[in-house]
Amino acid sequence: MSKVPPIVLNFKAYSESAGEKGMSLVKTCEEVAEETGVGIAVCPQQVDLALAAEKAGIPVYAQHVEAFEAGSRTGYVVLEAVKASGAQGTLLNHSEHPMEIAAIEAVIRRAKELGLITLACANNTEVSRSIAALGPSAIAVEPPALIGSGIPVSKADPGIVSDSVEAVKNLDPKIQVFCGAGISTGSDVKAALELGAEGVLLASGVVKASDPRKVLLDLASGVP
Amino acid sequence: MSKVPPIVLNFKAYSESAGEKGMSLVKTCEEVAEETGVGIAVCPQQVDLALAAEKAGIPVYAQHVEAFEAGSRTGYVVLEAVKASGAQGTLLNHSEHPMEIAAIEAVIRRAKELGLITLACANNTEVSRSIAALGPSAIAVEPPALIGSGIPVSKADPGIVSDSVEAVKNLDPKIQVFCGAGISTGSDVKAALELGAEGVLLASGVVKASDPRKVLLDLASGVP
Amino acid sequence: MSKVPPIVLNFKAYSESAGEKGMSLVKTCEEVAEETGVGIAVCPQQVDLALAAEKAGIPVYAQHVEAFEAGSRTGYVVLEAVKASGAQGTLLNHSEHPMEIAAIEAVIRRAKELGLITLACANNTEVSRSIAALGPSAIAVEPPALIGSGIPVSKADPGIVSDSVEAVKNLDPKIQVFCGAGISTGSDVKAALELGAEGVLLASGVVKASDPRKVLLDLASGVP
Amino acid sequence: MSKVPPIVLNFKAYSESAGEKGMSLVKTCEEVAEETGVGIAVCPQQVDLALAAEKAGIPVYAQHVEAFEAGSRTGYVVLEAVKASGAQGTLLNHSEHPMEIAAIEAVIRRAKELGLITLACANNTEVSRSIAALGPSAIAVEPPALIGSGIPVSKADPGIVSDSVEAVKNLDPKIQVFCGAGISTGSDVKAALELGAEGVLLASGVVKASDPRKVLLDLASGVP
Repeated sequence: MSKVPPIVLNFKAYSESAGEKGMSLVKTCEEVAEETGVGIAVCPQQVDLALAAEKAGIPVYAQHVEAFEAGSRTGYVVLEAVKASGAQGTLLNHSEHPMEIAAIEAVIRRAKELGLITLACANNTEVSRSIAALGPSAIAVEPPALIGSGIPVSKADPGIVSDSVEAVKNLDPKIQVFCGAGISTGSDVKAALELGAEGVLLASGVVKASDPRKVLLDLASGVP
Repeated sequence: MSKVPPIVLNFKAYSESAGEKGMSLVKTCEEVAEETGVGIAVCPQQVDLALAAEKAGIPVYAQHVEAFEAGSRTGYVVLEAVKASGAQGTLLNHSEHPMEIAAIEAVIRRAKELGLITLACANNTEVSRSIAALGPSAIAVEPPALIGSGIPVSKADPGIVSDSVEAVKNLDPKIQVFCGAGISTGSDVKAALELGAEGVLLASGVVKASDPRKVLLDLASGVP
Repeated sequence: MSKVPPIVLNFKAYSESAGEKGMSLVKTCEEVAEETGVGIAVCPQQVDLALAAEKAGIPVYAQHVEAFEAGSRTGYVVLEAVKASGAQGTLLNHSEHPMEIAAIEAVIRRAKELGLITLACANNTEVSRSIAALGPSAIAVEPPALIGSGIPVSKADPGIVSDSVEAVKNLDPKIQVFCGAGISTGSDVKAALELGAEGVLLASGVVKASDPRKVLLDLASGVP
Repeated sequence: MSKVPPIVLNFKAYSESAGEKGMSLVKTCEEVAEETGVGIAVCPQQVDLALAAEKAGIPVYAQHVEAFEAGSRTGYVVLEAVKASGAQGTLLNHSEHPMEIAAIEAVIRRAKELGLITLACANNTEVSRSIAALGPSAIAVEPPALIGSGIPVSKADPGIVSDSVEAVKNLDPKIQVFCGAGISTGSDVKAALELGAEGVLLASGVVKASDPRKVLLDLASGVP
């Protein structure tokens, strides 16, 4: 199973990332990844997942998935549908979509069987450590208070990043550690990587930017 | 805003309706609709919505939508995304995905503003009447115990269909009334229409059939 | 089944209404009801319900109840437990604890069988009308934006009160209509009753007051 | 903070444990604890918590608690209310009431500050380990398929008990480990303790028994 690239862009449910605007953003990410050589993965809006996976030349992840097995589950996204869509993995437990601990465990276990990547979010160091015990592909620590704030976690709360890296790697060094919340510049990315993170998870800083390409190029410049 | 056609197929989260299999099922529905002249709408898996809407020549609805406005709502499907995907409407309040009454009211109100169709499910006559007071495009009454049972509601519990038709039409004659649960043959459809329903909502009877085209042709034969 | 008295006090989960403080508040409500002759019902914190019902000489309601039947439902409050506690009814669908439409229907139906009162909250006129179709004992319309604001609904949005009264009574004149949000004085109560409401639902204005007895006496003075 | 005693009885929401029947069951537990010298804690129905805590001479725990702080949270049970009721702790994350990982973390952290015991349930060894990383007072591993089955986990799936003991103690030897599901005899208790558990969590085997005292006496006989 491949690794999560250093930049992961969560489209959330913004009007700026819906439909054609979302497809255009996928294309921009792909072009920047190609030009800079820095890996970028996208998490399109749930209803756009299969279309994005069909068109994108970069990794595509779902934003959320339920622990249910495929079946009579009207309106829910299950791992089998993510796999069949051509996506390569999924975000889990974003603070805007928190998950039950038993569901996180079940999704991580079943995603492994299906060869899907799991990037699980954690709101603090304790939760990072708790999720590490479940063995996801990667953990993104994001203090909810900084999400969408424009204040980068790598500067506002560097301790939460380095502590999470330590807590996770102590339990399982194979798990990649990311950080997120307030990241919007190459300098934020650089600071995050210096704290031991292997990448960043971001959203509004790119999606709501007047020139997403410019922001993405700047972000990529923070990756050595 | 157009009307809901007499046959609505809910793909649920079955493995038989995911990815390419789902796209093939959309195509089959389109062909049968063309051959028979009977309207068919499809509700693909949530992650396949935009792809299906791009490819289908028949109405495409989401299976569920949240009441949230577009924004920081990781992993949730909002009306703006459904609209931007090219879909024409959404199911609501399926018994496998029950909704809060305030959310149903908000979604119906905002869907009207966006020109999207709402087909809300109700588990009994009282709930049909309660939802009718909120003015959706259509209501589908489905007794949960019969869903996936193969025992058609139009035969097992005809009273729930005719009572719902009466309760809804008394409050607002513009609302279309559908029925569902256990429907799988043209004769079931005919019985439903004779009870006053304007169409049927079905899922497993088609999705899990060995020959969906044959079942769809039979179903369509029940529509005069 | 008795009627809901004109003043209903929701203790919510405030620290000011927990444990002994809550029991003391129940006693104050009882004394004011006795002194003024104005009926007051209390909704103690869920864990205090049986203790309050044992000690109070005024009606006691739960703050919320699930639609589940008695059984293996760890941590949930069911109607049978409310009944067995000695309480006389329950609030439903408070905007801080919104309920699925099918659950509201089931609770109202089963509460009637058990002889329990249901006071269901609605966030606007449309939801008031929709709940009226389900036949609760009473409906309390409360615009969420005004809850805890200190700005009384009876003055800030009188139309929502009179419209709800009209919508509910048109469907079923036996249903009592209450209003809530921002109510804290006798003059607010008077205004509410003049708009056609039969009583008020309130919380912080009393619970967080430095002298709850004084506020309760003032509120009672608004009831003719 | 005291330890969790070896027998913990969850009253769930059974009709057999509501109201007066529940208070009588509390009394029976207290008498058996006194007669046998074996510690027993009870988890009464949520609405009976304060009444039980007032009357019981043995530890009383809530069945569930939300992560919310005290405040405007109609119908929810918060830690401050549990504390004020006189109870000594709470169950968490029962498989009938699963909790989000971030909520489990917050409740455990805040319960410590309030001096309340947390007994968190886990459905398998992986989840036991994950919760151990959050530092609760105790963890009860309970395979959901065996709950209420009458087939004791200590015999049907001894590996899950010994593996959970090992996983938890490796992370934090101070955390007590319990097991549950299907436990109903002293021999089941003995088997559980021999596998390394420090106690058992049970429900229907006692609550629905024709003679709870007899069952409790038998259970207590399994504790050395």
